[in-house]
Amino acid sequence: MIRLGLIGYGYWGPNLVRNFAEVEDAELVTVCDLHPDRLNLVKNRYPMIQVTQDYNDLLTNPHIDAIVIATPVDTHFDLVWQALQHDKHIFVEKPLTNQVDKAIRVIDEADRRQKVLMVDHTFVYTGAVQKIKEIIKQGILGDLYYYDSVRVNLGLFQHDVNVLWDLAVHDLAIMAYLFDFEPNAVSATGTAHVPGQPEDMAYLTCFFDNHFIAHLHVNWLSPVKVRRTLIGGDRKMIVYDDLEPSEKVKLYDRGITLNETGEGLYQTVAGYRTGDMWAPQLDLKEALREEVEHFVQCISEKQRPITDGLAGLGVIKILEAANKSMAKHGSPVALD
Amino acid sequence: MIRLGLIGYGYWGPNLVRNFAEVEDAELVTVCDLHPDRLNLVKNRYPMIQVTQDYNDLLTNPHIDAIVIATPVDTHFDLVWQALQHDKHIFVEKPLTNQVDKAIRVIDEADRRQKVLMVDHTFVYTGAVQKIKEIIKQGILGDLYYYDSVRVNLGLFQHDVNVLWDLAVHDLAIMAYLFDFEPNAVSATGTAHVPGQPEDMAYLTCFFDNHFIAHLHVNWLSPVKVRRTLIGGDRKMIVYDDLEPSEKVKLYDRGITLNETGEGLYQTVAGYRTGDMWAPQLDLKEALREEVEHFVQCISEKQRPITDGLAGLGVIKILEAANKSMAKHGSPVALD
Amino acid sequence: MIRLGLIGYGYWGPNLVRNFAEVEDAELVTVCDLHPDRLNLVKNRYPMIQVTQDYNDLLTNPHIDAIVIATPVDTHFDLVWQALQHDKHIFVEKPLTNQVDKAIRVIDEADRRQKVLMVDHTFVYTGAVQKIKEIIKQGILGDLYYYDSVRVNLGLFQHDVNVLWDLAVHDLAIMAYLFDFEPNAVSATGTAHVPGQPEDMAYLTCFFDNHFIAHLHVNWLSPVKVRRTLIGGDRKMIVYDDLEPSEKVKLYDRGITLNETGEGLYQTVAGYRTGDMWAPQLDLKEALREEVEHFVQCISEKQRPITDGLAGLGVIKILEAANKSMAKHGSPVALD
Amino acid sequence: MIRLGLIGYGYWGPNLVRNFAEVEDAELVTVCDLHPDRLNLVKNRYPMIQVTQDYNDLLTNPHIDAIVIATPVDTHFDLVWQALQHDKHIFVEKPLTNQVDKAIRVIDEADRRQKVLMVDHTFVYTGAVQKIKEIIKQGILGDLYYYDSVRVNLGLFQHDVNVLWDLAVHDLAIMAYLFDFEPNAVSATGTAHVPGQPEDMAYLTCFFDNHFIAHLHVNWLSPVKVRRTLIGGDRKMIVYDDLEPSEKVKLYDRGITLNETGEGLYQTVAGYRTGDMWAPQLDLKEALREEVEHFVQCISEKQRPITDGLAGLGVIKILEAANKSMAKHGSPVALD
Repeated sequence: MIRLGLIGYGYWGPNLVRNFAEVEDAELVTVCDLHPDRLNLVKNRYPMIQVTQDYNDLLTNPHIDAIVIATPVDTHFDLVWQALQHDKHIFVEKPLTNQVDKAIRVIDEADRRQKVLMVDHTFVYTGAVQKIKEIIKQGILGDLYYYDSVRVNLGLFQHDVNVLWDLAVHDLAIMAYLFDFEPNAVSATGTAHVPGQPEDMAYLTCFFDNHFIAHLHVNWLSPVKVRRTLIGGDRKMIVYDDLEPSEKVKLYDRGITLNETGEGLYQTVAGYRTGDMWAPQLDLKEALREEVEHFVQCISEKQRPITDGLAGLGVIKILEAANKSMAKHGSPVALD
Repeated sequence: MIRLGLIGYGYWGPNLVRNFAEVEDAELVTVCDLHPDRLNLVKNRYPMIQVTQDYNDLLTNPHIDAIVIATPVDTHFDLVWQALQHDKHIFVEKPLTNQVDKAIRVIDEADRRQKVLMVDHTFVYTGAVQKIKEIIKQGILGDLYYYDSVRVNLGLFQHDVNVLWDLAVHDLAIMAYLFDFEPNAVSATGTAHVPGQPEDMAYLTCFFDNHFIAHLHVNWLSPVKVRRTLIGGDRKMIVYDDLEPSEKVKLYDRGITLNETGEGLYQTVAGYRTGDMWAPQLDLKEALREEVEHFVQCISEKQRPITDGLAGLGVIKILEAANKSMAKHGSPVALD
Repeated sequence: MIRLGLIGYGYWGPNLVRNFAEVEDAELVTVCDLHPDRLNLVKNRYPMIQVTQDYNDLLTNPHIDAIVIATPVDTHFDLVWQALQHDKHIFVEKPLTNQVDKAIRVIDEADRRQKVLMVDHTFVYTGAVQKIKEIIKQGILGDLYYYDSVRVNLGLFQHDVNVLWDLAVHDLAIMAYLFDFEPNAVSATGTAHVPGQPEDMAYLTCFFDNHFIAHLHVNWLSPVKVRRTLIGGDRKMIVYDDLEPSEKVKLYDRGITLNETGEGLYQTVAGYRTGDMWAPQLDLKEALREEVEHFVQCISEKQRPITDGLAGLGVIKILEAANKSMAKHGSPVALD
Repeated sequence: MIRLGLIGYGYWGPNLVRNFAEVEDAELVTVCDLHPDRLNLVKNRYPMIQVTQDYNDLLTNPHIDAIVIATPVDTHFDLVWQALQHDKHIFVEKPLTNQVDKAIRVIDEADRRQKVLMVDHTFVYTGAVQKIKEIIKQGILGDLYYYDSVRVNLGLFQHDVNVLWDLAVHDLAIMAYLFDFEPNAVSATGTAHVPGQPEDMAYLTCFFDNHFIAHLHVNWLSPVKVRRTLIGGDRKMIVYDDLEPSEKVKLYDRGITLNETGEGLYQTVAGYRTGDMWAPQLDLKEALREEVEHFVQCISEKQRPITDGLAGLGVIKILEAANKSMAKHGSPVALD
C-alpha cells in the first residue's frame, strides 16, 4: 500500500484526488490547500481524507510515501525539493519547474535519493496518443514530415506562466513521447494583450536536423475551443482531434507522389494522392487513471516512469528557448 | 461594352471565363492558352469565343480593351507590362508579381497611362469578408487583438512560388481590406519536404505598432482542408469558417474582463466572459462575379478598384519579407 | 433537513447520489441495492452513507422523509406504492410506471397522503430546454408547426421496456413541458431485431387538433449518437443539438412566406425565407442538480413539482398508445 | 452519334444540359421551354443549341433520337407517351409518373417499341451509393437490419407533388438499387402546414417480409439541411452523409452481440460491440455525368438501363401506397 499526500486542491487537484482515491494499493491520506473552503470541499466529498493548510504536515508524516503536487508552477521547485529532502516520491503537475537549472537539480536529487520523480504529462497516457505512438512505431506514416498542433480556447489565464508554458507543454510532452528525435532550435512569436499579464497567444516552430518541422499554436483568447493536431508523413497522415467524442484519431491514406521527369532533380513533379480513411477504436480508459496507476506501480516496483524528470526537462528546455525567441520577435534560438 | 481577352485557361481561368461570359456590358472576345487541348475545351463550351496560342493576338487587337491574366506567377510582370504598352486595362491573378520592384513598375506604368490595374484578391469580394468588414467598421469587436488564420489542404503544388505566395496571399489581401493599419515586421518559418520544390508548409507572424498580432498558417500537405480564421477583440470575437455551407461568419459575445484589484498594474486579474453567438445572413452571390463586375465598372466609370495595384503591392511586400525571414529561421524582417 | 433513501445504484443511481450528496438541506442517509459489489462502491465513495440490500430498511426508517427510486421500470409501481404506504415523498426514475392505470393509482395515493411525487424527467431541467421554453412562450417562433426529434445511439439494451419507453420518453417529457396542447392520437412503427427482446428501433408520430405534428425517432442500433430536435414555426425555427459542446440551441430566422396570387386559396405560392442565426448563452448548471434541488424544495415548501405525477402520466398514456399502434403496424390509436 | 432534345430548362434542366453537352457520342440539338427568358439563358450559354417553345418541334424532328424530360411531375406521362409515339428513347426526371397505372402504360409502350426508357434516379450513380452497394453485396454488414434516412431542408416547395414524391423518391430509388427485397407494406404520416399546398413534412415506414425495416424522414420546412442515411446490419453499420465534403460513407465495425445464457431463447442477453471506423475513398465523378453517359450507351448498345422503367415503377408503387396511408393517419397499406 502506497500512501500519498496531495498539495493543491485547485483546478486540477480534484481530478487527481478522484483518481488516486480509486486506485487499489494506494491511499490518499492527506490533502493540503491554503484555502479553508477548498479543504471543506474535500471533507464533504471524502470524509476519510485528512486535510491541512500546512504542507509540512505531509512532508514530515512518516506514513506518507509520496507527494502529489498540483500548485502554481512557480512553487514546483521548492515543494519538490523539500519533499525530496524528506525522501518522498514525487508526482508533479506539468511543467516540472519554471527553469531548466531547477529541473536539473531536482532530477539529480531524485536520482541520488532513488526516488520516483514523475511529471504529469497526462496526454501521453491517453488512448489516442498511445494509438498514434503505435502507428508511428510501425512506420505506417512513412518518412515523417511534420507535427502541427492548434490548441486554443478562452481562458483560463495563468498568472505565473505564459500560454506556451500552459498549453504548448502538452504538445511538447506528446512529441517527446512520439518521436525519437529532438529539436535543435526554435522560433517563437507571441504577444500579451493585457498589460502586466504574460503572453496570451503564441506560436512556436521547432526545427530539427532533417526536414521534419513542428509548429504549436496556442491561444487563451480564442472564442472557440480547438484541439487539433496533424501529423504528416509521405505515406500517410494523422488528424488527432481531442474534442471528437469517439473518432479522435483518423489515419488518412494521403500523401504526395513524386514523378521523376527524367530531366534531373529540379524536374521532379510533386502531386498528391488520396485514399481511404481509417479511425481505429481507442482505449477509452481515463488517461489520468492510467497515469496515477503507473505512478503507484513505479514506486512499488522501483521502475522509472514513462514521463520522468528527464521528459519534463526536455519540455522545459524548449519552453525556455521559446521565451527567449519570443522576446526577440522570432529570432531562432538553438538548443544544445 | 468592354471587350476582353484572357490569357491562361488553366486552373482558375475557366472560372474567370464563366463569370466574364455572364457580365452584361462585357464581352470576352478571345482566350489564349499554350495548350491546344485547353483551347478545345473553350471552343466546346463557348463557340462564340475566339481562341489562340499567341497572346500577341490579344495585345495587338484594337477591339480588346482589357486583358485578364491567369498564368503562372513568374509570367505576371512581363504580361502585365506588355499589355500596358498596348494601353490595355489589366485584371491579373494574385499575387500581382513575384517581386516588389516589378510591382512598383507596373503600378507606375498603369498610373501613367491611366489604365485600370486590378488584382484578383477574390476573398475581398465574398459576402463573408464584406460582413466582417462591416462588423469591424462599426467597432463591434472593441479593441482589435488578433487575426489568426489556418488555411491548409492537400495540394495543389505550385512550382514557381512557395505555399506562402499561394495561400497566405489570400489572408494578406483580406487583412489589407479589413484593417487600416499595416504590419511593421514579420517572422516566418517553413520548410520544403520535396527536394527542388518550394516550401510546402509555412507559418507567418505579422507584428504591428500596437499589440495587434496576425498569424497565418498555410500547408499544402494537410490531409484535411481547413479554412478557419479567428479575429479577436476585447469585446467580441469572430470565427470565419469558409467551409461552412451556411453560417460562415459567427460573432461570439466573448472576451476578457479585467478586474483591478486596487494593488497596482500587476494586480489586474484577467478573466473571461461568454455570451450569445450570432451568425448573420450573408450575401451568397459568387464573389468572382461581384469582382469581375467591379472590374468592368471601374473601366467604364474610370474608378480605382478596391483591390488595385497598391493593394497587390502591400501583399507582395509582406511576402518578400516573409521569404527573407523564412530563410533565416524566423528572424524578424522589418517592413518600411 | 430532508433525509433521503435511494433504491437502485445501477446506471443512473450514481448520478443521483452524487447530486443529492451535494445539496444543502438534504442528507442521503441510506442506499439500497441488491448487489453487494454496487454497495461496496457506495461505501468507498461515500463512507458516511449507510448501505443495505433490503429496501424495507429504508421504508421503515422513520428518519427518512423521501425515497429516490432508480430501479428497472417494472418495479416502479410496487416500490412507489409501498413507499407511499410509509408516507414517504417520492422521486422516481422515468417512466413513472409501465402502465397507465398503475400511474393513476400512485398519483391518487400521493395526493391523498399529500406527498410529493416527482418523476425524473431530467431534460426539462436543462438550460437548453429552459431557454427553448422561454423562446416559445414569447411567441418568437410564430405559429407552431412541428417538433421533430432524432435520438439514436448504440445500446444500452433495456430488457423490460422497448426503445420508446427508454428514449422517446425524454422527448414526450420535453414536449409536455414546452407546449400547452396534447396529442389526440398516435401512429407508431418499429421492430425488434433480436428474438425475445423488445423493439430496438421505433418511430412515433403524434397528431394534434391543429396542424402541429410531432415525430420521435429512436434507435438502440445506431452506429453514431444523434440527439437533434427541430422545432419549427412559421416565423422562426430551432435546432436543439444536445451533443454540441456549447451552442446547443440555435434559433434560425427562417420560415415560409405565402404570396397570395389573387386567384383564390389554391393559388397561394409558398416560398421560404432565410435570415440570421442566433445561439443564446445557456445556463450550464447540471440539470440533475437543478432537479434534485427542486425536489427537496418541493418537500420543504409543500409545492407541486414541475414534473409531477400528472406529467409522468401524460407521457405513459402516449407510450401505451404507441405500443398498441406499433403492434398494428402504424394504425392510429386515439388518446382520450 | 446520339442526338437529343430536352424539354424543361427549369431547376434541374441546366444540369442535364451541361452534362449532355460534354458527353462524346451525344449531341444536344434542341432545348424546349415555355419561358422565353429561360431559352435566352440557353442561347447565351450554348449558342449552338437550338431553342423552341413548342415541344412538338422536338418530337417531330427525325434527327432527334431521344427526348430528355425535366418538367413538372404531372406532365411526365403525357410527354413520355407522346415521345414514344414518335419512337424516341426517353430519359425522364424522377418520379417516372404521378400514378402507378400510367407508369405501367409507358413501360409497356417502351418495351413494345424497343425504346430505352430511363428514369433519372441520380443518386444511384453516385460514387457513394456505388460503394455502399459493393459493401452490401460482399456481405460485410452481415444480416441486414434497417435503412434509415433523414432528408430535410428548407424548400423548394413543389406544387404538384408532396414532399414524399419530391424527396423520399431518392431513398426509394437507392433502396431499390441496394437491396434485392422489396417492402410488403407501408405506413406513412405527414401534414401540410400551408392550406391548399401538399404535405410539406412526412414520415414513411416500409415493412418487409423479415425483420428488416426502412424509415424515410422528409421535410421541406427544416431550418438546416440534413442528408444522412444509416444502414444497419448485425455485423457492421454504415453512415452515409451526403453533405460531408469527402468522407461521405463511413463503415463502423459496430453491432450487437447476443449471449446465450443457457436458459432458453428469452434469456438471450443483447449487448453491443464497437470497433474501428473506415471511410473508403469514393469515385468523385459527377453522378449525373455518369448517368447521362449510361443513357447514351444504353441507346447505342441496346441495353436496359440500371434505372429503367421498372425501377421507376417500384418507387411509384410505394409512394402511391404511402399517400393512401398518410390520408389514414398511418394505417398500414399493403403492397402487392
